[in-house]
Amino acid sequence: MTKSAQPSRVARVGLVQMSTGPDKAENIDKAQRFIEQAAKQGAQIVCLQELFASPYFCQTEDAKMFDLAEPVSGETTSAMAEAAKRHSITLIAPIFERRAPGVYHNSLVVLGPSGQRLGHYRKMHIPDDPNYYEKFYFAPGDLGFMAVSTPHANVGPLICWDQWYPEAARLTAMRGAEILFYPTAIGWLPEEKAEFGAQQLDAWKTIQRSHAIANGVFVVAVNRVGHEASPNGGIQFWGHSFVCDPFGVVLAEAGEEEQVLVVELALGKAEATRRNWPFFRDRRIDAYSGIGHRYLDGNE
Amino acid sequence: MTKSAQPSRVARVGLVQMSTGPDKAENIDKAQRFIEQAAKQGAQIVCLQELFASPYFCQTEDAKMFDLAEPVSGETTSAMAEAAKRHSITLIAPIFERRAPGVYHNSLVVLGPSGQRLGHYRKMHIPDDPNYYEKFYFAPGDLGFMAVSTPHANVGPLICWDQWYPEAARLTAMRGAEILFYPTAIGWLPEEKAEFGAQQLDAWKTIQRSHAIANGVFVVAVNRVGHEASPNGGIQFWGHSFVCDPFGVVLAEAGEEEQVLVVELALGKAEATRRNWPFFRDRRIDAYSGIGHRYLDGNE
Repeated sequence: MTKSAQPSRVARVGLVQMSTGPDKAENIDKAQRFIEQAAKQGAQIVCLQELFASPYFCQTEDAKMFDLAEPVSGETTSAMAEAAKRHSITLIAPIFERRAPGVYHNSLVVLGPSGQRLGHYRKMHIPDDPNYYEKFYFAPGDLGFMAVSTPHANVGPLICWDQWYPEAARLTAMRGAEILFYPTAIGWLPEEKAEFGAQQLDAWKTIQRSHAIANGVFVVAVNRVGHEASPNGGIQFWGHSFVCDPFGVVLAEAGEEEQVLVVELALGKAEATRRNWPFFRDRRIDAYSGIGHRYLDGNE
Repeated sequence: MTKSAQPSRVARVGLVQMSTGPDKAENIDKAQRFIEQAAKQGAQIVCLQELFASPYFCQTEDAKMFDLAEPVSGETTSAMAEAAKRHSITLIAPIFERRAPGVYHNSLVVLGPSGQRLGHYRKMHIPDDPNYYEKFYFAPGDLGFMAVSTPHANVGPLICWDQWYPEAARLTAMRGAEILFYPTAIGWLPEEKAEFGAQQLDAWKTIQRSHAIANGVFVVAVNRVGHEASPNGGIQFWGHSFVCDPFGVVLAEAGEEEQVLVVELALGKAEATRRNWPFFRDRRIDAYSGIGHRYLDGNE
């Protein structure tokens, strides 16, 4: 990490890419150690991976797994609020949210340097694919897309599957987000990796870099690592957490092992990029109403 | 070009990447020679670059240039209709459209194998940047986003600056387009090339590949080449016309000289990709209404 030569606003983001085991307390402990490491390296906004306190339990549909869920102010949030306060940082902490009996969300909280809750986001786009049976577990979010004001930047929280949707990135940027954060759990199915693995990883990076380009924002993606077993062969989570600038240039990228990245962002680059590539100016807002339809085949 | 091993639907697309000179008849002649070359190589849908019949005259604001404009059924369209008929192909031919005195568009026509007009698209997003003074010349399109049914595929016509807008790609795909075509005129400003050239080219490719990924469609981008002078230093058009598949994998890419590319597309790959990456299924159409606003700062 090098200091920016400019006196303009900067934010130092920390990405915690880790593996998880079956014990929630141990996962939380590990996250705390990595948060401390990031803070010591100067990180001001630290982001953890999706559902960091547990294995990625959505590989099977099992109602017992709802026992892992917690209220939005539960033990995981409390532990993370303490960590944020201890290091005087902003912390983006995903949680498996128990909102009411039978109403669960894939969520995150944005915690400020005093441990206060600055934001709460519920994953809007819920996948359901082999080994990613999330529609069984999570009700779709109902808090919409948002920017959360923090001491160092306006952050736009999104979660995993949201990353494939240009609409989500656009709406979050239009709320004023300067940095989109995507806590994620994505990996290879072992039987697909040889044939499709490289393409899948590249598509995942490309779509997120495109959100940076289309919207003139920084993008931070934080993924998990490690193989997690399941009756269907499990998932090899591919890591490769990365940060890109508002023109899609990758500033830092992790490998496929546990890693903490700390990256300094020159926030002024967002406006500089938007001045030269003024996409917001020319949006045809008179012609986008079809976006609110499922498909445009005359039956909408 | 190799034949697909599958018996499924295929379309062979032809990309004509060329330089232009001041003489319209010569540009049309050259285009015709390249169209013939593409057809002889088996192309069924040939796409020309944006404003292929003239230099990129938008580098300065000069009312005399409106003399270059033609009615949608003018001489350029007629010559192209003849070429389509002669080779029994579908042809995507950009034109500088004179609609009425003072009403001009940056347009294209989609011409079928009998020379008939199958579609007419008017560029929706109009740029205005140093050396690209298009807002002076072109009224924004009012025909919306469309898919055009042709004998070989449903094609989604878009033009240049449209390529930076996820909304345009999404709406065109939702109309049923299987292949997005982006006739383009983009290049380096000489004074920027050393510092930013590689990033600009990469961003251009990335955003278009992302439309393929987000929408499960093929993308065909057709750019011009050559340096065209202007009082401001001119533009070095960067070529690099390319085709990518519905997961963003580049199938073919041109260099920075005149070139004809012919690429066979296995159209079934679009549905195969969408089955495995079912992004349309999970769109949150209840939560996208903000897309119709300029910005979401409380003043919309």
